[in-house]
Amino acid sequence: MTQTIDTPAGTTPQDRADSWLSGFEDALRSRDVDRAAGMFAATSFWRDLIAFSWNITTVENPDGVSELLTATLEHTDPTSFATSEPADEADGVTTAWFTFETAVGRGRGLVRLVEEDGEPKAWTFLTTLHELKGHEEPRGDRRPKGAMHGADKERTTWLEHRQAEAESLGSTAQPFVLVVGGGQGGIALGARLRQLGVPSLVIDKHARPGDQWRNRYKSLCLHDPVWYDHLPYLKFPDNWPVFAPKDKIGDWLESYTKVMEVPYWSSTVALGASYHEPTQEWVVEVERDGKPLTLRPKHLVLATGMSGKPNIPELPGQDVFLGDQHHSSAHPGPDAYAGKRCVVIGSNNSAFDICGALWENHADVTMVQRSSTHIVKSDTLMDIGLGDLYSERAVAAGVTTEKADLIFASLPYRIMHTFQIPLYEQMAERDKDFYQRLEAAGFDHDWGDDGSGLFMKYLRRGSGYYIDVGAADLVADGEVKLAHGQVDHLTEEAVVLADGTELPADLVVYATGYGSMNGWAADLISQEVADRVGKVWGLGSDTAKDPGPWEGEQRNMWKPTQQEAMWFHGGNLHQSRHYSLYLALQLKARFEGIETPVHGLQEVHHLR
Amino acid sequence: MTQTIDTPAGTTPQDRADSWLSGFEDALRSRDVDRAAGMFAATSFWRDLIAFSWNITTVENPDGVSELLTATLEHTDPTSFATSEPADEADGVTTAWFTFETAVGRGRGLVRLVEEDGEPKAWTFLTTLHELKGHEEPRGDRRPKGAMHGADKERTTWLEHRQAEAESLGSTAQPFVLVVGGGQGGIALGARLRQLGVPSLVIDKHARPGDQWRNRYKSLCLHDPVWYDHLPYLKFPDNWPVFAPKDKIGDWLESYTKVMEVPYWSSTVALGASYHEPTQEWVVEVERDGKPLTLRPKHLVLATGMSGKPNIPELPGQDVFLGDQHHSSAHPGPDAYAGKRCVVIGSNNSAFDICGALWENHADVTMVQRSSTHIVKSDTLMDIGLGDLYSERAVAAGVTTEKADLIFASLPYRIMHTFQIPLYEQMAERDKDFYQRLEAAGFDHDWGDDGSGLFMKYLRRGSGYYIDVGAADLVADGEVKLAHGQVDHLTEEAVVLADGTELPADLVVYATGYGSMNGWAADLISQEVADRVGKVWGLGSDTAKDPGPWEGEQRNMWKPTQQEAMWFHGGNLHQSRHYSLYLALQLKARFEGIETPVHGLQEVHHLR
Repeated sequence: MTQTIDTPAGTTPQDRADSWLSGFEDALRSRDVDRAAGMFAATSFWRDLIAFSWNITTVENPDGVSELLTATLEHTDPTSFATSEPADEADGVTTAWFTFETAVGRGRGLVRLVEEDGEPKAWTFLTTLHELKGHEEPRGDRRPKGAMHGADKERTTWLEHRQAEAESLGSTAQPFVLVVGGGQGGIALGARLRQLGVPSLVIDKHARPGDQWRNRYKSLCLHDPVWYDHLPYLKFPDNWPVFAPKDKIGDWLESYTKVMEVPYWSSTVALGASYHEPTQEWVVEVERDGKPLTLRPKHLVLATGMSGKPNIPELPGQDVFLGDQHHSSAHPGPDAYAGKRCVVIGSNNSAFDICGALWENHADVTMVQRSSTHIVKSDTLMDIGLGDLYSERAVAAGVTTEKADLIFASLPYRIMHTFQIPLYEQMAERDKDFYQRLEAAGFDHDWGDDGSGLFMKYLRRGSGYYIDVGAADLVADGEVKLAHGQVDHLTEEAVVLADGTELPADLVVYATGYGSMNGWAADLISQEVADRVGKVWGLGSDTAKDPGPWEGEQRNMWKPTQQEAMWFHGGNLHQSRHYSLYLALQLKARFEGIETPVHGLQEVHHLR
Repeated sequence: MTQTIDTPAGTTPQDRADSWLSGFEDALRSRDVDRAAGMFAATSFWRDLIAFSWNITTVENPDGVSELLTATLEHTDPTSFATSEPADEADGVTTAWFTFETAVGRGRGLVRLVEEDGEPKAWTFLTTLHELKGHEEPRGDRRPKGAMHGADKERTTWLEHRQAEAESLGSTAQPFVLVVGGGQGGIALGARLRQLGVPSLVIDKHARPGDQWRNRYKSLCLHDPVWYDHLPYLKFPDNWPVFAPKDKIGDWLESYTKVMEVPYWSSTVALGASYHEPTQEWVVEVERDGKPLTLRPKHLVLATGMSGKPNIPELPGQDVFLGDQHHSSAHPGPDAYAGKRCVVIGSNNSAFDICGALWENHADVTMVQRSSTHIVKSDTLMDIGLGDLYSERAVAAGVTTEKADLIFASLPYRIMHTFQIPLYEQMAERDKDFYQRLEAAGFDHDWGDDGSGLFMKYLRRGSGYYIDVGAADLVADGEVKLAHGQVDHLTEEAVVLADGTELPADLVVYATGYGSMNGWAADLISQEVADRVGKVWGLGSDTAKDPGPWEGEQRNMWKPTQQEAMWFHGGNLHQSRHYSLYLALQLKARFEGIETPVHGLQEVHHLR
């Protein structure tokens, strides 16, 4: 250990990284928690993705490190810390990628060191479990052979094996994991579980994988660029559009499901589920192609997503309104509404997209803004917000998707807004004219409670923004009319706002967002279980729609919950890709009977 | 130029490469053909893939270089030769990757320099055209945006655009290129043409893309390993089996066709085609889903493949034989033949695979060997034959598929056997026991006319070998019985060989190979056109089934033929991937009206 303490300031970044890592490993090997905790800066963050804690958790400062290590060090038995590429330094921060091992697996991490009291100390420290020993994925050198060479009178072909498996699943063989919801989240998790050899089944109500996208309004394209959107194992080819149209994404998801051999039942609805304590299994009633069936998985994953449960306001007069009315998720697109009077309630992503498409189809469009909204131009967001990690430029600089995901994961939620605020200040400056025009048109615009912009709004509340791909100009220019306030009621031919404003309408679209995943759990299982689990999503940032106290990680996502054997999976394509690894490894460990003592199981502060 | 001549022997490989390339460029710029030709060794090979010659051609020695340059230099106007990575040296040969430009495009190449008369001279020189200026593929930085940002009252979505395109194709819009045959070859070419914006259509008789594989005998797996088999643009994921089962490849091809948006008509048969000189277009009669239709493409590509036209011997008694008889391509697999007497005529890949699967299904199996066959064990071939270029080890060493393809392409066919012979000597040594057992069992084994093994047999004749995945042991062990000689006739219940041997049979499989692509051209177009074009495949090596004279490149493949606007495409997955680029660029240049003066159009020495 003296070696670390004696490290002179003039050493190279690699020296400092090597010295810190070996000093840290020494302290851990001798189970000296105080010494290890003392290697962290006074303000510091250790984020662990299941490597030490079998949880997704962030602890802060030496005290937090001490608490985490006291609880986890003995069974984790971490060793073999070593940098995996040359360490780097910028602005007084030494950054090093490293690998390590635990008693049961292999991990990857990223540490940022700062000088404090003349010594390099960890400012941020990320540890992630990457694979379980003895259960490495069959990839690369370990890939399956495919053809079984030799002659064998008991041989079955790949096709026969797949067919037999499909026939037995759900009848003579139960999945260990049932994933309800087969959008990108369920599919990515299904692919990982398949790779890990965990018997699983993904079910979805739609007729084909990808219909979750195909069935939405026809002008929909991804709002995030391609580099941010890859699924695990199989990347989009390099001719893939920056913002993929929904039907193309639908086709990709369908092909991906087949190619990755994800066990997937389409046209299957989950009707109800309950956990049977004595057998430690779920009893899930489903209807497959209209036929009832009971499944008995050991684990249940809700992957119906952030957008799985439409939020439709109940308004007086909805029963007398003579025109069409539907939630944005059921909006068929503009074709039937040329020349019609369309009122779109809401002012977030879907509202703007739908207003834009209706306007393009020669409709008369009014947007009803109920509360302030944050808007960023897509190109600006892509360039300033994501460019260093997810872009052609990042790829050229060697920042692979997997690396970008880990860099992103290494930024502590607690201070993430401090990195975000300056980026959004840049964006405000770059697009100054745009924001002036928008506000001049009466649009109520915000930058988030603390000016930290879009991504923090997404993490905190999952709503309140629009990534502008063109429709904001229609509002700024008055092409799409703007109204303000809450809707009071509907008449036969109009939407009436709280201030009495009457908006004549042939069509009302409720672009009013989605209910929480907690609500979906209540519907599928019970209110009791939903309440036990509590609110899903958000950080406890004490900003709008994300009440405190600070919880450090997104509530209930990809990690153990207060309901045994019940998990939530979802988020955007980035999150579906990255966090599906840790959720899959947690499930694999349980499948293999590997001990998974969970440290710091989250408390429930809010019901929904 | 003195700079090259003065280069001392002690310089670095990079110096030698730089100096040679700049000297060569100087000579070309001053149109000094003699000087340029003098920079090639007395025995040397320049292989050009359409960059200079708009042909696939190899010239030999300074004389050949001189002839090629005299014909092509002026319009090619090559410039900007520069190494693209540090040059290398081994065994006295300096190897350098380089890029260059021509008047119309950008190229990549590989040169090997040796010292001759105290100067570095080119021993092998590969030039390939990679892209056409102004027609770069929309990939990476140039990828499409997908979402069209902004608001546009004329907007069509991706899906609407695709649907409109599908509706017009073949009715109001004619494809510029019609590709007949939608296996891996047609699909890979279709994907490239799509990327290059050449209006094209791939037609295939099967119900779904991939059925070319799915419909074959059920135990079939690829005989080449995964690293050798990637399609363009979208690589197999790293969990893909080494030897993919046929149904899995079928699924991949189907997904690939969709994801790459290849215009593809399934269930479509080409009935006849003729070239209409006055309009310079083909008139192709097809039947799509049973309905007749005339297509009028400017170019016709036959991509029905090496295995497109089953070769079924006509034998007396076929009409009286009471059992099942079919060609290997129509063999349904072993399920119906447990306990039956099966005679498989032939001793190449399909014969062995089918014998093995029948034996595994408890059939009584006899193989009829009509001529000697070359066998290599799959693992040995993979390790010794392909390992340096196509393997996990090669990938780890930075040899990407694209790089491996160019290295492979840079080895001149004229001397390729000299590289191959020592590899096969190694294989013979490694598997000595296996070959002894095989010959002891009476199997007539060879290593090719000159001991150069499997790959040369493939390039020369496309037949005469088995990549052993296990069935050879059955023959060696007598589990599959062996008979020798030609079949004389069939009786009601037996196959009778020329020497009178009678083989009782409930099933006869004709694993008798495939007719040439020339024969398929005769069927589709006319004997006259087929004769004008001549033999397809083979090199003119003057070995069995590949008569001389030496032609330098594979006959008629991927390059202009004696029939205007008619092309042949095919080969294994490696060739389909690599050569589809050059065929696609040749077609793209013609589509864009770029001049493509063809140098050295091949002569016809053999009809079929």
